[in-house]
Amino acid sequence: MARWEPGTRDRLRAVALELFAAQGFEVTTTAEIAAAAGVTERTYFRHFADKREVLFGGQEQFQNGFVEGIVAAVPELDALGTVAAALTAAASFFPDEHRAHSRVRQSVIVANPALLERESLKMAALGEALGEALRRRGHPEPEASLAAQTAVTVFGVAFRQWLADGETRSLVEIEAEVWAGLRALVRPAAGGSGAPA
Amino acid sequence: MARWEPGTRDRLRAVALELFAAQGFEVTTTAEIAAAAGVTERTYFRHFADKREVLFGGQEQFQNGFVEGIVAAVPELDALGTVAAALTAAASFFPDEHRAHSRVRQSVIVANPALLERESLKMAALGEALGEALRRRGHPEPEASLAAQTAVTVFGVAFRQWLADGETRSLVEIEAEVWAGLRALVRPAAGGSGAPA
Repeated sequence: MARWEPGTRDRLRAVALELFAAQGFEVTTTAEIAAAAGVTERTYFRHFADKREVLFGGQEQFQNGFVEGIVAAVPELDALGTVAAALTAAASFFPDEHRAHSRVRQSVIVANPALLERESLKMAALGEALGEALRRRGHPEPEASLAAQTAVTVFGVAFRQWLADGETRSLVEIEAEVWAGLRALVRPAAGGSGAPA
Repeated sequence: MARWEPGTRDRLRAVALELFAAQGFEVTTTAEIAAAAGVTERTYFRHFADKREVLFGGQEQFQNGFVEGIVAAVPELDALGTVAAALTAAASFFPDEHRAHSRVRQSVIVANPALLERESLKMAALGEALGEALRRRGHPEPEASLAAQTAVTVFGVAFRQWLADGETRSLVEIEAEVWAGLRALVRPAAGGSGAPA
């Protein structure tokens, strides 16, 4: 049985996304998803706690991808350099061949307020995990939280752009552009930025 | 009746917070809160949709405080200067005489995962509202989202520090320090920052 588990899980994810995109998240039932994947509903619930989790089940790996990027970063980097390296490392979770899938998932999520809330909480949890990983590396507060949440901001803005219609650049390329945009925005006070003295 | 509504609402808030802090959020019932405030449970539900909302009922004013700060900012400011001005304006919602109350509210929230999620969503909604207000002022994407979410990061870090044991500085003073910390973190690439090229 264990041998077939990964295949079943991926198949459930794929058919669920197809059904959500075709007919809407609300009206789709877990029984339908299970039937379309050729398994029983009971098997569905061995893989996912509820209907929503089929869209969010990869959260642990997603978060670990970033945290491992922090652990693996060279020690010379400052807090922001460390999270930037983590973002680059985690971008391998979103290769260009997954973009079409990610676009469909995003269209399902933005159509449903409860799913948007779940996605928002996932990003907040990512920020907490990155801050904790930075503190474990010895970065003090508030530097750790500032860097962690700035990384989540950059990732979120870059990811949305990666999914935009007609966008063909890789996530890593877009992240580099967003980091540059952030640096231009947060200029030193002496440079005449509007940020308060 | 209308004359007494604001008083009732504030009294329900105050006694609810007292009960949550003394005996825990979970075990406290809306009937208890109503009784302690000297009103019927039906009156409670005229003011708050559920038990949780008594802690979050001020969200609209909270968010409007920031958005109005953006609308009122002088037009010469760049996107980050505009949100920084909004943070300063909204800090008037948290005068030092409210700090004790805010500390109790925070202790209730961090003790309960569902309340923490609700607070997290409130901050995400604030980021969306600030981004929308910046776009209405003509700031393009991704600048508007970057500035809006950076403002939420700075507010969140500063607010947590404002609530810390022994902290006596005003929220505006702490925000200025956090902005400076952010500027130090996000140095221009030429300055040797670890942020990626």
